[in-house]
Amino acid sequence: MKIGNKHHHSIWRKPGEPSVIQIIDQRFLPHRVEIEDLRSAADVRRAIQEMHVRGAPLIGACAAYGMYLAALDAPTDSSFYSHMEQVAQELKASRPTAVNLSWAVDEILAVMRTEDCAANKIARASARADEIVEEELVRSRKIGEFGLPLIEQLCEFKRGETVNILTHCNAGWIACIDYGTATSPIYMAHEQGIPVHVWVDETRPRSQGAKLTAWELGEHGIPHTIIPDTASGHVMQQGKVDMVIVGTDRTAKNGDVVNKIGTYLVALAAHANAIPFYVALPSSSLDWESATGEAVTIEERNAREVKYVQGLAGGETAEVLISPQSSPAANFAFDVTPRSLVTGFITEHGLIEPNEEGLRQLCH
Amino acid sequence: MKIGNKHHHSIWRKPGEPSVIQIIDQRFLPHRVEIEDLRSAADVRRAIQEMHVRGAPLIGACAAYGMYLAALDAPTDSSFYSHMEQVAQELKASRPTAVNLSWAVDEILAVMRTEDCAANKIARASARADEIVEEELVRSRKIGEFGLPLIEQLCEFKRGETVNILTHCNAGWIACIDYGTATSPIYMAHEQGIPVHVWVDETRPRSQGAKLTAWELGEHGIPHTIIPDTASGHVMQQGKVDMVIVGTDRTAKNGDVVNKIGTYLVALAAHANAIPFYVALPSSSLDWESATGEAVTIEERNAREVKYVQGLAGGETAEVLISPQSSPAANFAFDVTPRSLVTGFITEHGLIEPNEEGLRQLCH
Repeated sequence: MKIGNKHHHSIWRKPGEPSVIQIIDQRFLPHRVEIEDLRSAADVRRAIQEMHVRGAPLIGACAAYGMYLAALDAPTDSSFYSHMEQVAQELKASRPTAVNLSWAVDEILAVMRTEDCAANKIARASARADEIVEEELVRSRKIGEFGLPLIEQLCEFKRGETVNILTHCNAGWIACIDYGTATSPIYMAHEQGIPVHVWVDETRPRSQGAKLTAWELGEHGIPHTIIPDTASGHVMQQGKVDMVIVGTDRTAKNGDVVNKIGTYLVALAAHANAIPFYVALPSSSLDWESATGEAVTIEERNAREVKYVQGLAGGETAEVLISPQSSPAANFAFDVTPRSLVTGFITEHGLIEPNEEGLRQLCH
Repeated sequence: MKIGNKHHHSIWRKPGEPSVIQIIDQRFLPHRVEIEDLRSAADVRRAIQEMHVRGAPLIGACAAYGMYLAALDAPTDSSFYSHMEQVAQELKASRPTAVNLSWAVDEILAVMRTEDCAANKIARASARADEIVEEELVRSRKIGEFGLPLIEQLCEFKRGETVNILTHCNAGWIACIDYGTATSPIYMAHEQGIPVHVWVDETRPRSQGAKLTAWELGEHGIPHTIIPDTASGHVMQQGKVDMVIVGTDRTAKNGDVVNKIGTYLVALAAHANAIPFYVALPSSSLDWESATGEAVTIEERNAREVKYVQGLAGGETAEVLISPQSSPAANFAFDVTPRSLVTGFITEHGLIEPNEEGLRQLCH
């Protein structure tokens, strides 16, 4: 999608240096577009762990390239594959919740296993990583195509008035490769000339809504309003929201949705106010191994992210302490929205019911 | 309550200068305890509007002193009372939602009306303002006494294990005169040796939970953990919360609770997880004129409070921009929690059912 008037992806090979991967270091957004070179699996691990990149689809794509970069550096003797298995474990541990991460890493391991020499293994890893990126891009585009009619119908129902959509965190193009998941139908609606307005949940503690989603939408000229996480219930109660679309870091077999902390509260409020609550679900985020949301490990991050807020002061990135220095804080990164609160999944295969039977269609 | 080891109120007459009112300028908490002198109604209006003081009971008390300070400055001729009526209008407009504010202002107007000369009117205003402060203090203490058994029972039920209480925003002693409303039962339980732990909702945009409630509890040695507003549903779902206690800025005749933005989401999550949700309600916050919560005007504050976060950086108060400069934001200060989500009101007259019949007991 666009930054200024230029089209961008969130991850790409460096022009002229295809064994260097480039990303936008998202820690500096929205204030600065900083491109970072990733040259090793260690670079990738750090980028994922410290959230230079985030968003389940992008984490997966980035990890796939991490495996490729590791393969370039691996010993070419018989220890190659066991070395790669070691790297795979480390990459998977960099963030525990996004299922795309371990899926993508295992994909690269699997294609390498079928080749006999290191050079061929590397070539397969390289090609598969590119494919994973392309597949995520197609998933996002299709999610947009299947989600678009929902917005069109609401607009028709409202006789052409603006459709108000609330989203939480950032499941935008910057969390994916392009289009985004939750934002993909919104971008497509906007491109079709359907009047949309987006309520952007700030999404503390890291404020990805205020920082990233608002930035994305602004760069595309899509009307939006940032609200604190405390206000989503109020705007729904006031009739100011027609639908909710969020992403997912991992969806369990039964349809329980693991997503950014706070999604559960948004879902409760949507349910209480009879507002449709859709989850944009690329099949790469489906976790068929977890029977329910309860089975998923919820990452706990550093309390510092809660007590300090980062932003811009005097043109520089700065952080401020918002609490007593001595007070403890807890930082649960995700929560579980029970499937009973989900209206439907918008997937690359169409709209799907929030239950195991529906999700089976996404399973290969 | 305590700051360091010294006992404090949130508002008092300056020692040796009784016609100067002193407050703690809460904008600098928790990082600095800054005492401010209020010498005129204009000082009081600014202190309320710019939130040097906040919290419904304290706003009421402060406004009462504002009327007294205005009376000291008023023309002593026949225009005295019409001048005071003008000041009353201005004070009431300084923050629209807290009902205590207009109640306290009207109280002072009423007692002045019964006197014939300016000197007597001033004396009555002065005495009534002191009384209002004392009455709020007693209300808070009684709310603590009536709320304490709820915590005792939970502790008994848990066989002496720690009782986990979640609160939103700051309905602490710093929002009142002493004890607080929502915190009053918690302070009393702690003093009785009952093990309590408080989940402190950050409460964006102004983060009064992280800044004020955490500070208050820390100064008293009460175990607590700050969480982002996004996490209240998660900790409840995980069985980590035994009860919720919040304050109220205004409660309507039917029992609908107007309180800090985000309270509604907390109430929805408590309801969904069968956790008791109590509202600490001093009778001064009851609005018998509003039939339901919908009838109450919800204050909208400057979007700047959403886009900028204030805190401490390098030992100084600073603020950081957390969003694109060009993105709009909305800042609704309160929301309405329907009475159906309220377990009960903890009042200075005991526990009360969340309906008109129950609330009638609070009406004089």
